Amino acid sequence: MQTPSYTFTPTRSANEALLHALAERFGAQLSTAQAVREQHGRDEGSIAAPPPDAVVFAQSTQDVADAVRLAAAHNTPVIAYGAGSSLEGHLLAIDGGISIDLSRMNQILSINAEDLTVTVQPGITRKQLNEALKHQGLFFPIDPGADASIGGMTATRASGTNAVRYGTLRENVLALEVVLASGETIRTGTRARKSSAGYDLTRLFVGSEGTLGIFTEITLKLYPLPEAVSAATCSFASIESAVRTVIDTIQMGVPIARVELLDGPTVAAVNRYSKLNLREEAMLLMEFHGSPASVQEQAQTVQDIASEHQGQAFEWADTPEERTRLWTARHNAYFAALQLRPGCRVITTDTCVPISRLADCLLASLQEVQASGIPYFLVGHVGDGNFHFGYLIDPDDSAERQRAEALSQALVARAIAMDGTCTGEHGIGIHKMHYLPEETGPGAVAVMRSIKQALDPQNILNPGKIF
Amino acid sequence: MQTPSYTFTPTRSANEALLHALAERFGAQLSTAQAVREQHGRDEGSIAAPPPDAVVFAQSTQDVADAVRLAAAHNTPVIAYGAGSSLEGHLLAIDGGISIDLSRMNQILSINAEDLTVTVQPGITRKQLNEALKHQGLFFPIDPGADASIGGMTATRASGTNAVRYGTLRENVLALEVVLASGETIRTGTRARKSSAGYDLTRLFVGSEGTLGIFTEITLKLYPLPEAVSAATCSFASIESAVRTVIDTIQMGVPIARVELLDGPTVAAVNRYSKLNLREEAMLLMEFHGSPASVQEQAQTVQDIASEHQGQAFEWADTPEERTRLWTARHNAYFAALQLRPGCRVITTDTCVPISRLADCLLASLQEVQASGIPYFLVGHVGDGNFHFGYLIDPDDSAERQRAEALSQALVARAIAMDGTCTGEHGIGIHKMHYLPEETGPGAVAVMRSIKQALDPQNILNPGKIF
Repeated sequence: MQTPSYTFTPTRSANEALLHALAERFGAQLSTAQAVREQHGRDEGSIAAPPPDAVVFAQSTQDVADAVRLAAAHNTPVIAYGAGSSLEGHLLAIDGGISIDLSRMNQILSINAEDLTVTVQPGITRKQLNEALKHQGLFFPIDPGADASIGGMTATRASGTNAVRYGTLRENVLALEVVLASGETIRTGTRARKSSAGYDLTRLFVGSEGTLGIFTEITLKLYPLPEAVSAATCSFASIESAVRTVIDTIQMGVPIARVELLDGPTVAAVNRYSKLNLREEAMLLMEFHGSPASVQEQAQTVQDIASEHQGQAFEWADTPEERTRLWTARHNAYFAALQLRPGCRVITTDTCVPISRLADCLLASLQEVQASGIPYFLVGHVGDGNFHFGYLIDPDDSAERQRAEALSQALVARAIAMDGTCTGEHGIGIHKMHYLPEETGPGAVAVMRSIKQALDPQNILNPGKIF
Repeated sequence: MQTPSYTFTPTRSANEALLHALAERFGAQLSTAQAVREQHGRDEGSIAAPPPDAVVFAQSTQDVADAVRLAAAHNTPVIAYGAGSSLEGHLLAIDGGISIDLSRMNQILSINAEDLTVTVQPGITRKQLNEALKHQGLFFPIDPGADASIGGMTATRASGTNAVRYGTLRENVLALEVVLASGETIRTGTRARKSSAGYDLTRLFVGSEGTLGIFTEITLKLYPLPEAVSAATCSFASIESAVRTVIDTIQMGVPIARVELLDGPTVAAVNRYSKLNLREEAMLLMEFHGSPASVQEQAQTVQDIASEHQGQAFEWADTPEERTRLWTARHNAYFAALQLRPGCRVITTDTCVPISRLADCLLASLQEVQASGIPYFLVGHVGDGNFHFGYLIDPDDSAERQRAEALSQALVARAIAMDGTCTGEHGIGIHKMHYLPEETGPGAVAVMRSIKQALDPQNILNPGKIF
């Protein structure tokens, strides 16, 4: 498998006629300013591409439908834009086209507290949503770290630290309103919590990375804010002992809400960045949700398991302030690591393996990155078997980039051999495209392509992504 | 909306050349005996059709692939058959064709206790699976009542009494091996617990009712057997109070494992059939899973909530024998009801609504069925908002069938108006086909059709189902 190089020469850029038609329809909602285009032409990943030709700031489903129809009439790509926090080049206009910015469509359309559902527009971010929910005693648990838009999270099938208990966007979207490539709008489900009514279009669109349709409404499951929450850290002499603790915890049926792994050097970076004094060893960062008695029981069970695996320095964070400090530090691990190498770019891995293989997969890959000499960080949503290496590369050193990509490839090959996936939560985008057939086999990719062809025969929806 | 009448004239029956080719390939694994064909040509539903032209007893993925290839070469339908327990006419050979019986493919291929996963062949039934798992302290919770095959449950996106806590087949299938209409075999996922690698083909195939492919391997999530289990019944003067109890329970975040509703007359039928002495009022039948302390706490919370809603006669079933007796009685409600009218057939409804609308939906429909004079039963997976009326009709009285179908239509229309679905867990099959566009709108059905067309251009996989 060759590491691809990323140079793009757009062939389907918006022509004058399309730009004119868009300007007529959208007026001040259209921008062709260089700065606006550039802002919409990059994400948090390591790949660069020419910016889109124009940006439409959509304010309604009708806006999205009209923008798609106009683009389709000119055979020009359209790319949905939420918060720009994707990591794999999802929103890059590699073949030219129009960016549809959904950030102004950030309203909550209805909260149904009795049903534990909410319907939102796609541009709302997860923090905006939770801010609005908290006075009702409800929350939307999925937390990928970044303050991503709900539309973007839906498009990448995102998850994060709470998924071990609450699932991913796959489990938490009940229904979508979607604008198709034709400009037609459909609904893919109802507010019923389960359904056997025909093909599961909701799940087909969740994780489709903007290639099958653009979401204009999203109905999500909500959860009651837990009566009690407690967080804890525990240090281990080895990554293996930490992972073993997690396996036993899950096998005991403890409904742990979060369980994150950091390796020693990453804890050191976090300490430095966030002014903490965590023990600089492999660490589990955990959270328990439930009734006060249940939280106490869960925590005691896990503490007992950790002791059996020589866990040390079990420490509690019971107040909201302590917890926030700890989780903010965890979420800032990425930025903490960046400080290790000023000016670097990060190539992030996202493999996910069956948890029984996690220690093997982690340790072999850790050995390789340490041997390479490339600075790195390591964090893991270890309850799901999902972890991220970040390789901190010099963006001007193409040889180093190649070495980092080779590390990533070795890791992905290892994860696939262990019946795992190249991406647990970030998506394929451009950057992981060459891994997909390796993981699924060519037959499954052919099925995906035939669905894409059936739903978007002109290939105008975020072309060049996934496959 | 007209109630459809069900008369079928097959146009694509297997010709001599296909039967000859099948006999040559499958020898004694092929049957054209009338009794075998008839057994494979009916399900538990109310619709009759001519039997399939032949039955292939598949013993391997290769058998399935070869049978599909031969059928495709002769443009003849193929219909997967598991346990024959579907309710909506799913396996009826309405346009002729070959039934592929998968019941001999009932092996467990691997159990991964650390990962809480199992890979099975499709013909294994849920009871066979749980029998094999229990010595490992694990179980597969989804329980639709019937001892259905896992393949059939996957094909209908089944759920049942445990779904309120453990989800449906949608949430519990990790990966599939599928034989496509071309005879080609693909895999749709890995054993990783989450993935963002391309379109969610697993979820697309789950619930596709045999119309997109035939499953030959299924990887499922498992759960640790709960340390403690407790069941309880509680009676209510009104259905509304029972439903209100459930809403409050779920809003409190109590992780109740099962919560079933029966109305008074249905309790009476159950008492008679299963020799029980349950109070003949609206009743909740509940189960709690967890640690002993957690089970006790959950039960206490629910008992308190029930008291607030004038729940009476809260009774416990703590021993496995008592619990089994109670749940067997619940599962036999269907057969108990049949005794109310010997020789009847049952038209079963399966609507699922947001729980805040459940009482309204139930009560209005109850009034209608009572006014109609048609004997009925009523059971509900009330934590999910899903419930079943069974209308007990005289199969020879077509006017009565029409009246029962009219009751069903009124109920479905009501559920859809409440943002619910016509089927929570039974699937569309033939019998609910006319409800689908009403529920999803024609645009979503067109998307489903275009996917079907892309994956099965000859329309040989279980044609005439879903749409």
